[in-house]
Amino acid sequence: MTPLSEAERFARLRLARTDRVGPVAFSQLLQRFGSAVRAVEALPDLIQRSGREGYALPSIDRVEAELAAGERVSARLILLGDADYPPLLAAVDPPPPLLWTRGDIALLSQPCIGVVGARIASAGGQRIARGLSQQLGEAGHVVVSGLARGIDAAAHLGALPTGTVAVLGGGVNDIYPSENADLYRQIVEQGCIVSESPVGARAQARDFPRRNRIISGLSRGVIVVEAEIRSGSLITARLANEQGRDVFAVPGSPLDPRSKGPNELLRQGAILCEGLEDIERAFTTLRTLSEPPSDSPFQDAPDDLDDALVEQVAALLSPVATPRDELARALDLPIGIVAAALLELSLSGRATLLPGGLASA
Amino acid sequence: MTPLSEAERFARLRLARTDRVGPVAFSQLLQRFGSAVRAVEALPDLIQRSGREGYALPSIDRVEAELAAGERVSARLILLGDADYPPLLAAVDPPPPLLWTRGDIALLSQPCIGVVGARIASAGGQRIARGLSQQLGEAGHVVVSGLARGIDAAAHLGALPTGTVAVLGGGVNDIYPSENADLYRQIVEQGCIVSESPVGARAQARDFPRRNRIISGLSRGVIVVEAEIRSGSLITARLANEQGRDVFAVPGSPLDPRSKGPNELLRQGAILCEGLEDIERAFTTLRTLSEPPSDSPFQDAPDDLDDALVEQVAALLSPVATPRDELARALDLPIGIVAAALLELSLSGRATLLPGGLASA
Repeated sequence: MTPLSEAERFARLRLARTDRVGPVAFSQLLQRFGSAVRAVEALPDLIQRSGREGYALPSIDRVEAELAAGERVSARLILLGDADYPPLLAAVDPPPPLLWTRGDIALLSQPCIGVVGARIASAGGQRIARGLSQQLGEAGHVVVSGLARGIDAAAHLGALPTGTVAVLGGGVNDIYPSENADLYRQIVEQGCIVSESPVGARAQARDFPRRNRIISGLSRGVIVVEAEIRSGSLITARLANEQGRDVFAVPGSPLDPRSKGPNELLRQGAILCEGLEDIERAFTTLRTLSEPPSDSPFQDAPDDLDDALVEQVAALLSPVATPRDELARALDLPIGIVAAALLELSLSGRATLLPGGLASA
Repeated sequence: MTPLSEAERFARLRLARTDRVGPVAFSQLLQRFGSAVRAVEALPDLIQRSGREGYALPSIDRVEAELAAGERVSARLILLGDADYPPLLAAVDPPPPLLWTRGDIALLSQPCIGVVGARIASAGGQRIARGLSQQLGEAGHVVVSGLARGIDAAAHLGALPTGTVAVLGGGVNDIYPSENADLYRQIVEQGCIVSESPVGARAQARDFPRRNRIISGLSRGVIVVEAEIRSGSLITARLANEQGRDVFAVPGSPLDPRSKGPNELLRQGAILCEGLEDIERAFTTLRTLSEPPSDSPFQDAPDDLDDALVEQVAALLSPVATPRDELARALDLPIGIVAAALLELSLSGRATLLPGGLASA
């Protein structure tokens, strides 16, 4: 893999920080234009052509300010395409465009396993999370969690001596909750802190699904220790399942509402986990991680799309997610033109790109 | 179904109390001779022909003494073939030849579910067993258990107002443990006590697998609440599974050794049970209970077997369970002759008959 040039890295960060460019559009823009440098060049024109109220790329200054902020906290930026971008995370569809990191980034490419659960955890649950994480660490796994109270903190503590990764919702320097400030500093020293958010950003509620997607995306499997039915931990478990990763659940008494989450996961087919043996047993069975489609969908797309074609595609969209090859068949158009039209429409906010080649209005 | 004559009922009890006549031989003797009366007539000759140190049928006096003992405690005898023999238990291969009962035998033919678990149960486990049994009762299920301490007692208590069945290892009047004497009396009043053992017998360790087989055999499913790995409850679960009944397990924390049993059952595919909904959901899915083979295997067997043939069959037996049709193929004999030879050999202790047409030395 040729290392990315500094200009390309800068363009990738700039592209990732552009409004309406989520991970799907980011990956598709790289595919459509071959590089972020070229995508950034093409974007103003695309945005103008899309005809809606315009928006601009983030300014060079703003991007430089984010890089400077990272430097101030000794954070290191890993961009999709960098040699040290974690391979398991690259297999996620779509992969996060970037990771800000503090600490030992080598941990991210070692065998990782997520340990997540309730913030308001029982003493027993925290004991299980800590003991299991210690065992996992001693068996050569890096324990990934979210630096939250309760199960997350216990998991990080158990794996601190062997290697642990904390994925944050806010920026890589956003210590939350404050009671985990000591733990945060220990992880910077001995483990690795990871965040997709800009340096300096405070965590918002909407950041946590992205945070959870990285916890599962870095990991071969995710263990849920205690969790209520409607909880971030169950979202992480769902994401892990969608990403083709193993989902483990630690069973608990029906008398404790914090058991409802793992018990429901067990009902849905999660692997029962009482200890390390359950995880090792699952990992010795042969599995193939789902590979994202590697072919570019834009092969037959001209550089300039006909506006009428774009409008034809727009007219077919609905709030229901539709595969782009279905749109191509309906319009009798090459799939590359439909994909390019959807990408343009997404930049003007008229389409939402979804993983797996799907789009909705 | 024609009601059994008094003579036939007497002969069935006598046959069931004959040494070396377990449930498999009992059913096969009925098939071979068409009735217990005829089997009892044929048995002395069969026993003599089998050539080993002889044993006799139990005396008429002994059988009458068992009937009198039952009468003294107002117990009622249900024999295989009686109209009120529980239909689900009759579907077990082989069915128990008889049940001694006290209380309301109508409960035995209603939809039953087993609730079993640890004798030394946690307060939480007992609360779950009692609450679940109450819910089950209110939903129209009869709760079957084993009158042991802990989970069993809690299950009976919860279902006392709606109907509960206690299956004993000892005789139907053998109150054990003594701390459950009040519960025993309440079940006689409001529920039903069941035992396969002779009236007056004290429970021995070897009685409990037979007791457990009746708990599961009466039931459409069995719920294990708390249990260690090597425990009678797990044997009951295994028997239920072999009988084609649903096995439910209530999950528990890995920190409690009493969760090891149910959690292991969940690993093996038991249905996770947190409450009534889990049971009702399983019961609404269509299932077919395994039917025991109803054809007699003795169709081509002459009344008198050639001794040489019997010895040929004996010579092929080993401690490994072997299907009788495999023996028939090896000897190029009709399966009926092999089945009849195996039955004779079992009476002289030279063969062990196993369910499913299997036999071992």
